[in-house]
Amino acid sequence: MNEVEIEYCEPCGLLPAAEKTGHALLTTHAGRIHGLRFTPGHGGVFRVDVDGETVFDKASEEDFDVDVIVARVGARLTPPTIQL
Amino acid sequence: MNEVEIEYCEPCGLLPAAEKTGHALLTTHAGRIHGLRFTPGHGGVFRVDVDGETVFDKASEEDFDVDVIVARVGARLTPPTIQL
Repeated sequence: MNEVEIEYCEPCGLLPAAEKTGHALLTTHAGRIHGLRFTPGHGGVFRVDVDGETVFDKASEEDFDVDVIVARVGARLTPPTIQL
Repeated sequence: MNEVEIEYCEPCGLLPAAEKTGHALLTTHAGRIHGLRFTPGHGGVFRVDVDGETVFDKASEEDFDVDVIVARVGARLTPPTIQL
């Protein structure tokens, strides 16, 4: 549970966008995300999943807004299980 | 295969070091790393694994050198399987 994956198109240069998203998620949801995986991909992909469920997919949404992604991920995470 | 994990101590503020290491790995070994996972942890942990085998562990090595970690990871990755 609380596993996040960011698949990004490596040849298209989407690593910085993936890193920006990953940083926002790991800081905003510190203590709740158990793991965040970067998956290099192809073909323009940029997709964010939580426990296998897509919360953002560039293929179906043009606007890339990190704050929106952070909020959507937060809504799917189970409450804090790690005490800070 | 070619799965990298970076476990870092979240309360100790080691996320920046983890992100610096992750960036170096995903750029230097682009096309070879299939996935890179950030795992928030506790107790001062900072460990880098490739396919479950530790290549760097802060608990047993004081010097944190990203270039050394990048070289060690590279030595364990199977040759490029993704064409760029």
